Amino acid sequence: MKRIIRVNTRTGEITEKAPTEQELRWGGRHFIAKTLLNEVPPTCEPLGRYNKLIISLGLFADTNLSTAGRLSIGGKSPLTGGVKECNVGGNAGKRLARIGVKAIILEDIPQEPKTRILFVSADEAKLIDAPHLKGKLVDETFEILRKEFGERSGLICIGPAGEMKLYAAGIALSDDRGEQVRYAARGGLGAVMGSKGIKAIVIDDSKQVEPDYYDPELLNTAVKEVFRILQEDPKSQNRRKYGTLDILEMANNLGLLPTRNFSSGQFEFAGNMTGPRVAELIKERGGCGKSGTPCVPGCTIMCSNVFPDKEGKKIVASLQYESVVLLGPNCGIGDIDDIAELNHLCNQVGVDTIECGAAIGVAMEAGVLKFGDAEGAKDIVRQIGEGTYLGRIIGNGAAFTGQAFGVRRVPVVKGQAMPAYDPRGLKGNGVLYATSTMGADHTAGNAFETVRTHNPLAREGQVQISRQLQIRAALIDSLGVCLFVRPAFIKKKELLSMLCKGRYGWDMSFEEIKRMGVDVLETERKFNELAGVSEKVKRMPEFMREEPLPPNNEVFDIPQEELESIWEIEMDPETF
Amino acid sequence: MKRIIRVNTRTGEITEKAPTEQELRWGGRHFIAKTLLNEVPPTCEPLGRYNKLIISLGLFADTNLSTAGRLSIGGKSPLTGGVKECNVGGNAGKRLARIGVKAIILEDIPQEPKTRILFVSADEAKLIDAPHLKGKLVDETFEILRKEFGERSGLICIGPAGEMKLYAAGIALSDDRGEQVRYAARGGLGAVMGSKGIKAIVIDDSKQVEPDYYDPELLNTAVKEVFRILQEDPKSQNRRKYGTLDILEMANNLGLLPTRNFSSGQFEFAGNMTGPRVAELIKERGGCGKSGTPCVPGCTIMCSNVFPDKEGKKIVASLQYESVVLLGPNCGIGDIDDIAELNHLCNQVGVDTIECGAAIGVAMEAGVLKFGDAEGAKDIVRQIGEGTYLGRIIGNGAAFTGQAFGVRRVPVVKGQAMPAYDPRGLKGNGVLYATSTMGADHTAGNAFETVRTHNPLAREGQVQISRQLQIRAALIDSLGVCLFVRPAFIKKKELLSMLCKGRYGWDMSFEEIKRMGVDVLETERKFNELAGVSEKVKRMPEFMREEPLPPNNEVFDIPQEELESIWEIEMDPETF
Repeated sequence: MKRIIRVNTRTGEITEKAPTEQELRWGGRHFIAKTLLNEVPPTCEPLGRYNKLIISLGLFADTNLSTAGRLSIGGKSPLTGGVKECNVGGNAGKRLARIGVKAIILEDIPQEPKTRILFVSADEAKLIDAPHLKGKLVDETFEILRKEFGERSGLICIGPAGEMKLYAAGIALSDDRGEQVRYAARGGLGAVMGSKGIKAIVIDDSKQVEPDYYDPELLNTAVKEVFRILQEDPKSQNRRKYGTLDILEMANNLGLLPTRNFSSGQFEFAGNMTGPRVAELIKERGGCGKSGTPCVPGCTIMCSNVFPDKEGKKIVASLQYESVVLLGPNCGIGDIDDIAELNHLCNQVGVDTIECGAAIGVAMEAGVLKFGDAEGAKDIVRQIGEGTYLGRIIGNGAAFTGQAFGVRRVPVVKGQAMPAYDPRGLKGNGVLYATSTMGADHTAGNAFETVRTHNPLAREGQVQISRQLQIRAALIDSLGVCLFVRPAFIKKKELLSMLCKGRYGWDMSFEEIKRMGVDVLETERKFNELAGVSEKVKRMPEFMREEPLPPNNEVFDIPQEELESIWEIEMDPETF
Repeated sequence: MKRIIRVNTRTGEITEKAPTEQELRWGGRHFIAKTLLNEVPPTCEPLGRYNKLIISLGLFADTNLSTAGRLSIGGKSPLTGGVKECNVGGNAGKRLARIGVKAIILEDIPQEPKTRILFVSADEAKLIDAPHLKGKLVDETFEILRKEFGERSGLICIGPAGEMKLYAAGIALSDDRGEQVRYAARGGLGAVMGSKGIKAIVIDDSKQVEPDYYDPELLNTAVKEVFRILQEDPKSQNRRKYGTLDILEMANNLGLLPTRNFSSGQFEFAGNMTGPRVAELIKERGGCGKSGTPCVPGCTIMCSNVFPDKEGKKIVASLQYESVVLLGPNCGIGDIDDIAELNHLCNQVGVDTIECGAAIGVAMEAGVLKFGDAEGAKDIVRQIGEGTYLGRIIGNGAAFTGQAFGVRRVPVVKGQAMPAYDPRGLKGNGVLYATSTMGADHTAGNAFETVRTHNPLAREGQVQISRQLQIRAALIDSLGVCLFVRPAFIKKKELLSMLCKGRYGWDMSFEEIKRMGVDVLETERKFNELAGVSEKVKRMPEFMREEPLPPNNEVFDIPQEELESIWEIEMDPETF
């Protein structure tokens, strides 16, 4: 992966250069963090000239390592005002790797509004005016692009929400089969892409570039071993059967399931949307429904699904835990078909389901519509795409909606909505939301995996646990693999050294590799500090510290000073 | 002024205590700054339990010093996230001084939404449920209160915008004659009052408290001398004739008049709204129209007016420079009657005219309505009062409106709209907006008075000038007098020592008194720093540095490093 492509969206100039030895060592999230700190003024306007949208491949994107085709997309976040990296599936990552691209950096903004496509192949990168795509929904856009550029194209695009620069806008990726829509959902990166006048990126890998593995045999051994461990791992097996919804029942039982704008941790209709129930429905309904499908080419976990309606026609693919909880229980909506349709609508207008579900929950609390009003919620999501006044309010996220309607109970940190774990019911995730460089974001170090080994309601130990999880997540996001690959590295951490040696010839101990995760966090923290959005000033919402959450009736009670001490904890060099 | 009244709006408990020797020395803005830093967590939610709304009298509020009845109202600002102090006319300040009140501090928030009146007299302070006032416009509220509590009552209230907790909401004060509405307009303090469930404050001074002057004769000498100087001062004389609109023609000639969302510094219809033109219209139209009326009892400058329609019926009182420019030229609206009506509507729904005019300008740039569409603009302001979706967007200010509609050119600093001096045409005010603890706010040290002696387009010297002006403004806001009283102290700075000695018996040199201004700024800066809204992170909008402003075609070009150096400049101990 020898190509770093820079696109000046103002002048139209496109340049390419090979990574330096240093840049080569920065994959995915690591590359984004370094590029932001080195090139983007931390106080710049997120939708202005000086922000950059950075698309970056993981260190192993051009190998057969399971899930390594995932892509990191980042920039300064409009929502949080700090760094943002989203790790996303879809087919674009693999396509980019095959044509030797390490990163694409979109710079500046056009002087007049534009709707353009960035086309990238092994031989060229060019901007194409595409006024016919203006305002198109995500599926419409993908369909047009497949017609114009071929079925095999790697596709990235934004919906109308991104074009309108709404802060809840995400960036959509297609899979190989035109089946799933995957999202670099969080932090408003769709608005950053929109500000640069790029409606879509099309990757043509009909001509490919040969990867230059240092030791193909060693690499292959490690890749196969990861595959083997994941195949045997019971958690991975459950994910294939039940998808990410596998955890919903336990989350509800533990009382941490965000319900009716984070006013309860249990939902009376949770049974309608558990992993087993959804898998059962998919099986019963048949048609195009399926469980256990990959979101990225070559994934062995295959936690995605295609969720059909009663006639077997696809409603949405894939139905995931976070989206279901924020659009369902958090809005008091208990019918899985309603939830799936809401999810589909979000995917089409191009907004983050977490942010949108949280915003609708806040609007429901304000009385704009009633909790449980599924049709009202669908109407609102459609309105986002139409750019009505209400649509623009909700499309700008939960904090914005709270301000519009004078709601005090707004579940955000750093302006970004909390995902599907109430921090009062899973205090480790409270630590994460409050201290992560990403704002409230479970992917930065989800403590849910610790609930069996560590009391989620205990104050003690959570900061230490979160530190460990955050370092690991930062590392995994830099390798470019899915967080769900971690069981392989937990079981055999020497696999990481083998991968580095086999792919690049680097001799790196586990500790050295792990230290990359620390470097990511330190780089991101530095950027956030300069941007004025450190955890010292952007804190847990007050209601989370005051209002006990049923049924456990706990508040988030880890003191601010203890939260801030997280950065003083030394990395544990041994455990993954 | 021996009473500091604290109202816990959650429990309903009201306590009173006398100020400490230390507190006695903090007047107006000084008292607010100290109370915020000592009692309010800087990172607290502005509309949450831990913010306080502080009403504080100036050091000389209970004397006959011209304009000393002005009131300081402050708290942590929802708009800027930092300290906010508004200095405002009306009759409440004098009333409070006469019943011995030094400050009122509204604490906490009610558990359930409330609409209450805080009633204060010499003998008591009590909360009165007032559901009948819910949603009432400002004039309606004042009318009802006068009926219920007597014509002589000192009155403070919020409009529906404050009740809805919109961030552009201000706090309205009545004058003695029920003629003018004066506003503690900026920073969203109306939303803070709304969050505390206090719709109105009624002050009954039928029983009064004798002030305890240290040396009444000395005090009287100083008071009279201030009066004499202001009487003879040509600027003050012009203000009486033409009001604050006196400067409009010069602002337009200099090319710094914000026009069509800060896209030009000159407006082709400026001639319709100059001070002389408005004074002429008032005279021609007769009826209830008048020029040269005071906003606060006992003011000798009398820069207010009552602006009548063609039939001589009042449209609005008073018509002021900032409101006229932001609602007029900045929205492309050139008819003074339209502007007056817009101003009146803002006063009634309870929003800051500057923030609202800037927000409408941004909406016009977005194409929500056309520049110059006066009827459309009026409709929007009415919608604020009704709480429609569009009304809520505009009612939350310019930055919010910019985000809703994806507008990049948003004239705010620290989230607060710029007043009627484009920083590219008056660079001293650019320094002010960028460095003031208050965000973009001309009252914190307006450099317009320097345009005759210092080239407003020059980079050189502006930081030094602004430093001086900011210290002076902080001091004047603490004395509790109007900024327009400064000519008296510029001419005879020893008057300040005489006033301190005469009123309190304090022996203070001019330098010591002036150092109070420095202490105010240092206290406020400390709070802002801890709140995360220092000038290091909250900066001049990028378009102000890139887009030349016609007709001078200048950008704001004072480097950020030079702006930040403002705090290293030593106070000049001699000049006022």
